[in-house]
Amino acid sequence: MRPSGRQANELRQVSITRNYTKHAEGSVLVEFGDTKVLCTASVEERIPPFLRGSGEGWVTAEYGMLPRSTGSRMQREAARGKQGGRTMEIQRLIGRSLRAAINLKALGERSITIDCDVIQADGGTRTASITGAFVALQDAINHLIKTKKLKKSPLFGQVASVSVGIYNGTPVLDLDYDEDSSAETDMNVVMNDAGAYIELQGTAEGHAFRADELQSMLDLASHGIEQLMIKQRDALAES
Amino acid sequence: MRPSGRQANELRQVSITRNYTKHAEGSVLVEFGDTKVLCTASVEERIPPFLRGSGEGWVTAEYGMLPRSTGSRMQREAARGKQGGRTMEIQRLIGRSLRAAINLKALGERSITIDCDVIQADGGTRTASITGAFVALQDAINHLIKTKKLKKSPLFGQVASVSVGIYNGTPVLDLDYDEDSSAETDMNVVMNDAGAYIELQGTAEGHAFRADELQSMLDLASHGIEQLMIKQRDALAES
Amino acid sequence: MRPSGRQANELRQVSITRNYTKHAEGSVLVEFGDTKVLCTASVEERIPPFLRGSGEGWVTAEYGMLPRSTGSRMQREAARGKQGGRTMEIQRLIGRSLRAAINLKALGERSITIDCDVIQADGGTRTASITGAFVALQDAINHLIKTKKLKKSPLFGQVASVSVGIYNGTPVLDLDYDEDSSAETDMNVVMNDAGAYIELQGTAEGHAFRADELQSMLDLASHGIEQLMIKQRDALAES
Amino acid sequence: MRPSGRQANELRQVSITRNYTKHAEGSVLVEFGDTKVLCTASVEERIPPFLRGSGEGWVTAEYGMLPRSTGSRMQREAARGKQGGRTMEIQRLIGRSLRAAINLKALGERSITIDCDVIQADGGTRTASITGAFVALQDAINHLIKTKKLKKSPLFGQVASVSVGIYNGTPVLDLDYDEDSSAETDMNVVMNDAGAYIELQGTAEGHAFRADELQSMLDLASHGIEQLMIKQRDALAES
Amino acid sequence: MRPSGRQANELRQVSITRNYTKHAEGSVLVEFGDTKVLCTASVEERIPPFLRGSGEGWVTAEYGMLPRSTGSRMQREAARGKQGGRTMEIQRLIGRSLRAAINLKALGERSITIDCDVIQADGGTRTASITGAFVALQDAINHLIKTKKLKKSPLFGQVASVSVGIYNGTPVLDLDYDEDSSAETDMNVVMNDAGAYIELQGTAEGHAFRADELQSMLDLASHGIEQLMIKQRDALAES
Amino acid sequence: MRPSGRQANELRQVSITRNYTKHAEGSVLVEFGDTKVLCTASVEERIPPFLRGSGEGWVTAEYGMLPRSTGSRMQREAARGKQGGRTMEIQRLIGRSLRAAINLKALGERSITIDCDVIQADGGTRTASITGAFVALQDAINHLIKTKKLKKSPLFGQVASVSVGIYNGTPVLDLDYDEDSSAETDMNVVMNDAGAYIELQGTAEGHAFRADELQSMLDLASHGIEQLMIKQRDALAES
Repeated sequence: MRPSGRQANELRQVSITRNYTKHAEGSVLVEFGDTKVLCTASVEERIPPFLRGSGEGWVTAEYGMLPRSTGSRMQREAARGKQGGRTMEIQRLIGRSLRAAINLKALGERSITIDCDVIQADGGTRTASITGAFVALQDAINHLIKTKKLKKSPLFGQVASVSVGIYNGTPVLDLDYDEDSSAETDMNVVMNDAGAYIELQGTAEGHAFRADELQSMLDLASHGIEQLMIKQRDALAES
Repeated sequence: MRPSGRQANELRQVSITRNYTKHAEGSVLVEFGDTKVLCTASVEERIPPFLRGSGEGWVTAEYGMLPRSTGSRMQREAARGKQGGRTMEIQRLIGRSLRAAINLKALGERSITIDCDVIQADGGTRTASITGAFVALQDAINHLIKTKKLKKSPLFGQVASVSVGIYNGTPVLDLDYDEDSSAETDMNVVMNDAGAYIELQGTAEGHAFRADELQSMLDLASHGIEQLMIKQRDALAES
Repeated sequence: MRPSGRQANELRQVSITRNYTKHAEGSVLVEFGDTKVLCTASVEERIPPFLRGSGEGWVTAEYGMLPRSTGSRMQREAARGKQGGRTMEIQRLIGRSLRAAINLKALGERSITIDCDVIQADGGTRTASITGAFVALQDAINHLIKTKKLKKSPLFGQVASVSVGIYNGTPVLDLDYDEDSSAETDMNVVMNDAGAYIELQGTAEGHAFRADELQSMLDLASHGIEQLMIKQRDALAES
Repeated sequence: MRPSGRQANELRQVSITRNYTKHAEGSVLVEFGDTKVLCTASVEERIPPFLRGSGEGWVTAEYGMLPRSTGSRMQREAARGKQGGRTMEIQRLIGRSLRAAINLKALGERSITIDCDVIQADGGTRTASITGAFVALQDAINHLIKTKKLKKSPLFGQVASVSVGIYNGTPVLDLDYDEDSSAETDMNVVMNDAGAYIELQGTAEGHAFRADELQSMLDLASHGIEQLMIKQRDALAES
Repeated sequence: MRPSGRQANELRQVSITRNYTKHAEGSVLVEFGDTKVLCTASVEERIPPFLRGSGEGWVTAEYGMLPRSTGSRMQREAARGKQGGRTMEIQRLIGRSLRAAINLKALGERSITIDCDVIQADGGTRTASITGAFVALQDAINHLIKTKKLKKSPLFGQVASVSVGIYNGTPVLDLDYDEDSSAETDMNVVMNDAGAYIELQGTAEGHAFRADELQSMLDLASHGIEQLMIKQRDALAES
Repeated sequence: MRPSGRQANELRQVSITRNYTKHAEGSVLVEFGDTKVLCTASVEERIPPFLRGSGEGWVTAEYGMLPRSTGSRMQREAARGKQGGRTMEIQRLIGRSLRAAINLKALGERSITIDCDVIQADGGTRTASITGAFVALQDAINHLIKTKKLKKSPLFGQVASVSVGIYNGTPVLDLDYDEDSSAETDMNVVMNDAGAYIELQGTAEGHAFRADELQSMLDLASHGIEQLMIKQRDALAES
């Protein structure tokens, strides 16, 4: 029995709200239950130094948590003077995941930065971030097309992400904080709309997981990501 | 004529939403027109080192802007590795303003940190922050009373803040970004419910301001803060 | 009765010594009683990145306190690895105040940095800094004219600053450390020679201040700044 | 055909040298072909603050690359003033992997830090690090037993790691730099001696990987890790 | 012929002014010609962590240059966010030199920090700093004796320092900036009043120096330091 | 009697191994007894900003210690976020010493960075670093000649370094850690193959040293450096 009463293969209530703020080229509030992340996409007509002369563009991500998005207040990373290891790990994951769905050559010499800021955390902030970030990225691309800076979309796939884990001995989908903090195993899966894997990050917290447990978790993830992709498409279909 | 069509002495649409997020002891979304700031109050049962042994508590504030809360993306302060001068100036102002309304001795040996994070910026983020922060602080005090940690409120006043300025030669109330960026003079006023000044910060951008201009601005500020205090009390009156 | 025995409207002994050190284009030791600040103006034939292509110059300030300029030793900011919030607040104030008196277009594509380093502190270091910095800036402009880099002065006003406050219920001028540390209200006023305000920064420490108290303080400030401007002119009149 | 001429399921030459340096409680030079990492285990009789009072010990890792361990010189992280995201990601992975094999309660209130410093890099530094770090950790535990600080080993498993990937369309084991830099997919697998997974980190570089490709890679990893564990046991069997 | 017209074995005009500022337990302005350094000694009744429980006190130094103490403005180290290598090298040298003249056990569990801040630089700032710092340290010890915190002085020697070098092929004493910047060899010598060496730091800039050149420089240094010690004693003899 | 049983004028076992790692243009493992330092020379076809337009090249050094190269683990400087004063002092010394043997004009507009990383420390890491760094620098120059980037060597001298000190009242050569930590005086001497001094850094730890002690130490240093230069030449003579 899950703390939330959900079935093992049941996602939390998922909501994707576009145009959440007014300045960004893409601005999406994504909610996986009580986890709420604001994903904004910012287009800039410049590229990082390591790409100069390559003719390619860049897509990257940054991640942050508001200090009191969590149960007890976390120190503000700007005040500490550096981003922690967990933050770096997550923002690198988001960036890689998005780049797996876009042709950087076709994007041209510009960059898109996706900022994922957690307003409220209840487990799964990185998977919600990736899922919302893809929609913000799509909106930024739409903006480039509408403003004639691109003729056609450099995106060639759809990307979404969900967590799976072993909770009380049972594989479950989309862990919330209560589950996550006591799960024996926790895996974040990023997939594309062809059903292939972009990122797999599995960590045994309590006990190492066997091949059959891995398989069950992958099946749950695949099932969950299909539904998340429908949510993404539905959100994008609204004008 | 103001860009927004407002009268010189007219506030923007102001909205104060309590319990905006679930973890913090106080959580308020304050909106001054398109400026939206999330103010959370976090109670911690410890005090900073410089107060040890004093028997007093502490109230402090931190301020941040989401990277794309503004028209063009700002670099994330956590990534830059330090908070800028403007951020420090603002968070010190918020902290001082709140401390002017609370008896730190009566608060006891605990601290309350108010985090003001700008979700969307359109001018006046510091005055909106102070106005929202006071409501979040009141909610945190209510929480301490409800959980029997305090017998009565250490707050002895109400605090709100508004900006005034000289725009196109005319004193105006509550400048939005369009006005702010071309104002000749900009002043932030923090007052209490006795009509006295807690902070005055006036800066001549275009031309130095005369005593009569100062008086007009102070009159506008006083008028605006009265209305903001009604908004605060209305919000706090809701259960 | 003031600790120093001064009248309420009486400045401390003020002294302005030009050419205090030999390398800088302007070098001024300013003394407000026991507060001693060395203000040097450095001309550099380059501008900060955000001004490139604008045809404008720049005037900015930095502020520091020697570690033992104060009653107990302060940690050196260079050793701590960052400038504190108070330092940033003050140096931003000095820079803004000076820029209110100069035509940056007429200065041309060069920058002048005013370093205000506190040798000995006894209250009022920021107002002494502004008052001395103006003289150092004037000397740097004189140097540019003498070396034929400028034909005429881009300065269009004179700037000075003084603190006022409520001490033991009485408005007083130019607070020293003893007064400052127990004042109920503290206000720093920057004015030009037309008697208009460039900056007003008032902070209620003990109790919020009423409109009539504000008026008394502004009158004292105006009176004090007139005398400071005479001191500046006298110093500049010496060859 | 692999650049090195190896079979798809063939490890590089692996060598594990214990007691490589004299000060550390465990000191292991691990070589996967031309990749050479020095892993030292340092026992300290203190624990990090977050564990105080828990009665538990701690095992953690730090990772670094000598500036010229790579083909072109990398800036020294100590000179840059911070550890990069990749470094943090890797040292967190090493630490988690080791903690999955040790009973921290049984370790007692002490900590063991494993430093993995790359002397020469040719792909697979993180998997070599984990594999060598386990041997250094075992030596540090042996030291604690020999010096009577522990009665019996808190280790309950053996841990090793290898990379697998898709290179030119073929799943291959233990990628060297030439393969790694052009692989379509790269996965780091950490397993224990029960054949279960401790960490899985798969990243699609060129194209997303299908379920059947994942399975092939997992099979190769399992095969490789079995051999690495023999190497570890052989090394530990030497006196 | 030296640029200043001095003889090869001639010091610059040396001046040592005690009680230069009012807060510090020792405050000395030392001038070697146009080089002016303010040395303050601050007594604190605490010791650094590495000495806890040792029963010993500590003497240490910090060094800084005002940004425009030099011919062209240097970036402020507090703004850069770190002290440079040269600064660290110098402050470590000053601290070691002073500790060579004091019995730290007899000082008791307190620390004395000497801040050497260069007001104006013209070569030899480190040797002037050491020479002035000794006088400030002596004054701080006097203060401890006068306030009954110490019964007798823990100082057992007198310390002074001077630079010597090879300029235009000739060994010279006490190099000024013009000489220093073109000297072939530069050596800083710290000695005690028994004529023994505390620190020797010689650096060949242009050509390596021979044993006979070394001997000539050491003779000059010894001669110069004798005179500096008379200056120190004269200054300390004034009440 | 020395702890190691060596004669007063006896070096430790010295070994210089070229081509220790494969990527660097010069890569040398230098061993002075149990002190082991890896010195790599990296050629880069660019120069630091302060040399632009000068037509000169640059030689510089960086120094680091692996965290457990020492008896107890030192905090990693990359994790602390800055290099300590001792590190800076040493790397500046190594750089200056090498530049005393090379014609930077003849090197051309390129830079060579020598990284000296201490694998195991047992006293004398800086002198071993300089001695090994010279061989790595020579190999980098050889590489530039072989790859036709230079026609002839810009090196005009040979550089080596050794420590000397007063241990138990007796001058000794090449102190190991046991001696170094209790020596009364410690001096690092850098010389060239003409028998002249490049750097002298003597520090009195216990008691100030007399002129005759200085002479004895210099004689020992000269004797030791002659032998080290033979070791360098022998190493460089191998193909």
